[in-house]
Amino acid sequence: MFSLSPAETSDVVRATREIAGNQPVLAGGGYGVRKACDLTLAIEAAVGDGILLLPDFLTAALQEGIANRVRAACRATKMAVIFCNHGMSQITARTLAQLCEECPNLIGLKDGTGNINTVRRVTAMMGDRLSYIGGMPTHELFAQAYRGAGMSTYSSAVLNFVPETALAFHQAFVAGDDAACEKLLTDVYYPFAEIRDRQPGYAVSAIQTCVRLRGFDAGHGRRR
Amino acid sequence: MFSLSPAETSDVVRATREIAGNQPVLAGGGYGVRKACDLTLAIEAAVGDGILLLPDFLTAALQEGIANRVRAACRATKMAVIFCNHGMSQITARTLAQLCEECPNLIGLKDGTGNINTVRRVTAMMGDRLSYIGGMPTHELFAQAYRGAGMSTYSSAVLNFVPETALAFHQAFVAGDDAACEKLLTDVYYPFAEIRDRQPGYAVSAIQTCVRLRGFDAGHGRRR
Amino acid sequence: MFSLSPAETSDVVRATREIAGNQPVLAGGGYGVRKACDLTLAIEAAVGDGILLLPDFLTAALQEGIANRVRAACRATKMAVIFCNHGMSQITARTLAQLCEECPNLIGLKDGTGNINTVRRVTAMMGDRLSYIGGMPTHELFAQAYRGAGMSTYSSAVLNFVPETALAFHQAFVAGDDAACEKLLTDVYYPFAEIRDRQPGYAVSAIQTCVRLRGFDAGHGRRR
Amino acid sequence: MFSLSPAETSDVVRATREIAGNQPVLAGGGYGVRKACDLTLAIEAAVGDGILLLPDFLTAALQEGIANRVRAACRATKMAVIFCNHGMSQITARTLAQLCEECPNLIGLKDGTGNINTVRRVTAMMGDRLSYIGGMPTHELFAQAYRGAGMSTYSSAVLNFVPETALAFHQAFVAGDDAACEKLLTDVYYPFAEIRDRQPGYAVSAIQTCVRLRGFDAGHGRRR
Repeated sequence: MFSLSPAETSDVVRATREIAGNQPVLAGGGYGVRKACDLTLAIEAAVGDGILLLPDFLTAALQEGIANRVRAACRATKMAVIFCNHGMSQITARTLAQLCEECPNLIGLKDGTGNINTVRRVTAMMGDRLSYIGGMPTHELFAQAYRGAGMSTYSSAVLNFVPETALAFHQAFVAGDDAACEKLLTDVYYPFAEIRDRQPGYAVSAIQTCVRLRGFDAGHGRRR
Repeated sequence: MFSLSPAETSDVVRATREIAGNQPVLAGGGYGVRKACDLTLAIEAAVGDGILLLPDFLTAALQEGIANRVRAACRATKMAVIFCNHGMSQITARTLAQLCEECPNLIGLKDGTGNINTVRRVTAMMGDRLSYIGGMPTHELFAQAYRGAGMSTYSSAVLNFVPETALAFHQAFVAGDDAACEKLLTDVYYPFAEIRDRQPGYAVSAIQTCVRLRGFDAGHGRRR
Repeated sequence: MFSLSPAETSDVVRATREIAGNQPVLAGGGYGVRKACDLTLAIEAAVGDGILLLPDFLTAALQEGIANRVRAACRATKMAVIFCNHGMSQITARTLAQLCEECPNLIGLKDGTGNINTVRRVTAMMGDRLSYIGGMPTHELFAQAYRGAGMSTYSSAVLNFVPETALAFHQAFVAGDDAACEKLLTDVYYPFAEIRDRQPGYAVSAIQTCVRLRGFDAGHGRRR
Repeated sequence: MFSLSPAETSDVVRATREIAGNQPVLAGGGYGVRKACDLTLAIEAAVGDGILLLPDFLTAALQEGIANRVRAACRATKMAVIFCNHGMSQITARTLAQLCEECPNLIGLKDGTGNINTVRRVTAMMGDRLSYIGGMPTHELFAQAYRGAGMSTYSSAVLNFVPETALAFHQAFVAGDDAACEKLLTDVYYPFAEIRDRQPGYAVSAIQTCVRLRGFDAGHGRRR
């Protein structure tokens, strides 16, 4: 989403729609209010089902400002909106509860903050009113703790290049087999994390490089 | 520990020893290598059983420096040493594993960082070689997530002024009764957390004030 | 720039071009490599003279990645490029020196980091190869220190609503009249700064509100 | 100060007193209120002239708490007190002004924060009521900017191992010879800074190592 122009996002949604059958198609969006709303409309026009609303650009915001932006995006569309908590734009449980009352199409929260206190409070407060997606970098490293905090679904970055490992971890995780999870963490995830942590930015570009190593074209990417 | 002079720490250990019977008596210590070792010896002389080793003063340290300091404290005493991970002085799983090999009297880790990734990695790596203590401010807010990361014991700050609530939470927590934990979080802990979060420093001084409200003398305290 | 769509940026450049006579017209741009290059081309097509290149979106970058992005923007255009140092995307003096060799149309650095060490090193290293713009929030609060570090030109936010004060400060600043600067800081700038500091985000929205109080339309703004 | 026990601090003060003649002798102190006051009394008993009051240990503090601690130390002694602004314990210009009214023996501020906005505001507000000491790591890198902000005296770390260079910089600095300052920055200080920045903690330990290279015993040091 970082590297795509708005027109490219539309193209990707349309292409995905064609092969997705009945599966829901969501796309990422972000930046300021106007850009976020424009992108929402573009995704909807491309027959997408929802938007993952990433943060605004560059500056800190009050809860009031964060809420205004989410509200504007939700009102601009009939699609589903999932808010992504990240960076300088972090929503509180209280603000999220207010938005849930006002915006029936706000259906989920993805968390990339690692702020486990807020995660716990949101799940205690909103229960099954929202869907939750753990979204930490290499989230398997955090998955068991996030489940303790009430967030048991997550997105997997390594799924893009070692799907068999990602699925094995997920299977062990769902089965509550902590020993099997630990073994995979120790054998695969911690060694990978050590490579990833060598430089800032590798959380994304290490994934891209691994995808290329598996023979796929990872696109022009982030160019970093 | 922040407010006590070394002599006062010794006095507190001696007084606790007298009434503790067979219970282990530990005291907090910290600061630079020399001061930490001196305090360790003083606690041992006062017939304490161990030291909770808090961070060094004021500056960042490499893993090598953190390890040297823990090693020095462990070698200075036959008592048990529990390392407290906190602030600028954060130990990695790898450094901790190395220290565990060298220092048989390094028996535990208390974590006050909220870095759930490191917590998970330490418990995966060290298993039951160490005892673990969750030590976040008002740790009940984090307890379920920390358990997910393999750390199921914690210290409770509110135990000092609402012991019945702290024990009720602990009982529900041990029983795995997440619904009862959530109810206490919602009814008691989140309202308390909102008061505590009003100002930096309240994580300690709000506890002191509450202890006073229950009729106990909380000492001259932090004076903040 | 945060609130404008790409099409609106083009419109603003064209409108400014019409009334600007021989004055250079620059516009802000940012985000990922592709978006930044697209916006650069759009500004050039609208007969702008240059771009102020703001940071990428959301994540940390290595010096190599920052350099790649600046290089791509410089190569995409014959216009002048001014790099804005800000947030997670902070360039070092060394990287900047390398880019200055490769990109003759990289003509300036705007600094919004407050990292006075880097500012000093850049001006010592690059001298008059680059133009410099101090770009801290309410930069007059920093202007004398930045001049000490070799950066004596700045952009003024309060110029938008109290131009007489901003010009009086600038006049005193250029004349080296520190006493007059201090008086304006004490009488006007520090009281304003206290309002601005009440909430995160006010550095921008307090300016917008003040502009409105002077009777101008500040646009739909940041909506925060 | 980090590595000395209270008794060692007294010893150092006494030894310095013997050779200092009429020069004022100051020593560093810090930690919690009680420890800071005890150390102040010990320095006074060793016939010191003043204390450099470093921050409290480990946690954030409100302005009220910072003020209480400074007030307690000032009242505990007739010696001069210089407050060191650093880390989590950062005083505002407003709090400092209040303390200056109450505590005639609060005579100076040392700044190690790099917060040039606060530095400028303090010097504008307090003028020559206080003495000022720039205290950034390798402060020569910041000296010209700090002078722009009204703080033209500083402590030099490299003076401990290359006194001729430190004095040459100081001489150029006092003479306002910016070209000579820049030459020394480029030839000596920036290369040294690159070594120092290789690892956290080197700001202190690189100095210690260099002192040893010059043939002096730098003590047991920080052991990091």
